[in-house]
Amino acid sequence: MQVFIVYAHPEPQSFNGALLHQAQTTLAQRGHEVTVSDLYALKFDPTAGRHDFTTVADPERFRYQAEQKHAAQHQGFVETIRQEHEKLAAADVVIFQFPLWWFGFPAILKGWVDRVLSYGVAYGAPAGGSYKTGPYRGKRAMLSLTTGSAELTFVAGGRHGDLNTLLFPIQHGILHFTGMDVLPPFVAWAPQHATDEERQRYLALYAHRLKLIDRTPPLYAFR
Amino acid sequence: MQVFIVYAHPEPQSFNGALLHQAQTTLAQRGHEVTVSDLYALKFDPTAGRHDFTTVADPERFRYQAEQKHAAQHQGFVETIRQEHEKLAAADVVIFQFPLWWFGFPAILKGWVDRVLSYGVAYGAPAGGSYKTGPYRGKRAMLSLTTGSAELTFVAGGRHGDLNTLLFPIQHGILHFTGMDVLPPFVAWAPQHATDEERQRYLALYAHRLKLIDRTPPLYAFR
Repeated sequence: MQVFIVYAHPEPQSFNGALLHQAQTTLAQRGHEVTVSDLYALKFDPTAGRHDFTTVADPERFRYQAEQKHAAQHQGFVETIRQEHEKLAAADVVIFQFPLWWFGFPAILKGWVDRVLSYGVAYGAPAGGSYKTGPYRGKRAMLSLTTGSAELTFVAGGRHGDLNTLLFPIQHGILHFTGMDVLPPFVAWAPQHATDEERQRYLALYAHRLKLIDRTPPLYAFR
Repeated sequence: MQVFIVYAHPEPQSFNGALLHQAQTTLAQRGHEVTVSDLYALKFDPTAGRHDFTTVADPERFRYQAEQKHAAQHQGFVETIRQEHEKLAAADVVIFQFPLWWFGFPAILKGWVDRVLSYGVAYGAPAGGSYKTGPYRGKRAMLSLTTGSAELTFVAGGRHGDLNTLLFPIQHGILHFTGMDVLPPFVAWAPQHATDEERQRYLALYAHRLKLIDRTPPLYAFR
């Protein structure tokens, strides 16, 4: 399989860095081909705007989705975005490796979503529709994330609420929307407060999840 | 009252621009003082990193939260971030004006959250804790947003799921976390498909919401 990892952490020595390395090693050992977009290393610009395009649909008034649609029809995406489209097109599985910042994606990763999951490419005509008619039907997606606080704060009725509810806009709203089968997230709870032994256990658990990635039942059914 | 509006839209002629203008006018007419951070006009950088700080806690390994905490204790935030801290400190009400992109904040606005709601300032010692001990207790917050699709797609069991569930990570996870009272969002449903009359109705409805902003009951109680 082709696995595409979108990685968003500013520090290579972080536990996110260790999880990325674990995925690369485990997947390569099993004969999968792994591509990584390291957004901090790429200095990926998160801000959507006219600089996304080499084409212009309307010079008077900037409507982002309309410009994306026009660019999709006229090969008008800048090289940075076009390359990400190609990595997505080639991928059987897409993994997002990130620290949960403010109960969601770090801005650099949200910007990747805003700019790369473009109208006419990741959803919408001419590529397809959304959800069951999404262009990425047949691909699998999985979040792999670290939290700042403990698991018991992320349950229903807990301090922050249920993690699945917090991740719904990403897992359903973003990933399932494009047609992908979204697998349950891999979560390393508060690794900065964990012992070395606990961190090793997370890495082993993650390797196990990765070995089952082609067989794991998805979270949401298409209707 | 002091009202601080954080505005994130690339196009001044957009309906988001019209809602911003409506808020400025309505609030000023009622004697409130309004401050705006227009993130696109400011070319606000959404990416968190060492460039947030004039101080360094650990030159070997970058831990974002630890650097924020250190900066809070040693006046180590760069001017861009310090100015936003001051606007927040002065505000009685904070309004976020944005288009719902991928069921959440546009990246430029998520980056404002990542970088400006800093540890030691917006939550955490020395400023306070979180939720009922959050430093921003007594302030009110409200989202004012536009959607791309119709209201009927944002209900429980609908295509995208209930809007309140989609906004939970922002309204509860981000805003309530800092101690703010979070008011029900103002939503303009799919203004790009609306008639001029419908858009006028949204502007009038928004003005009415703004007039009641000091009296509107918040969504979440502190426990």
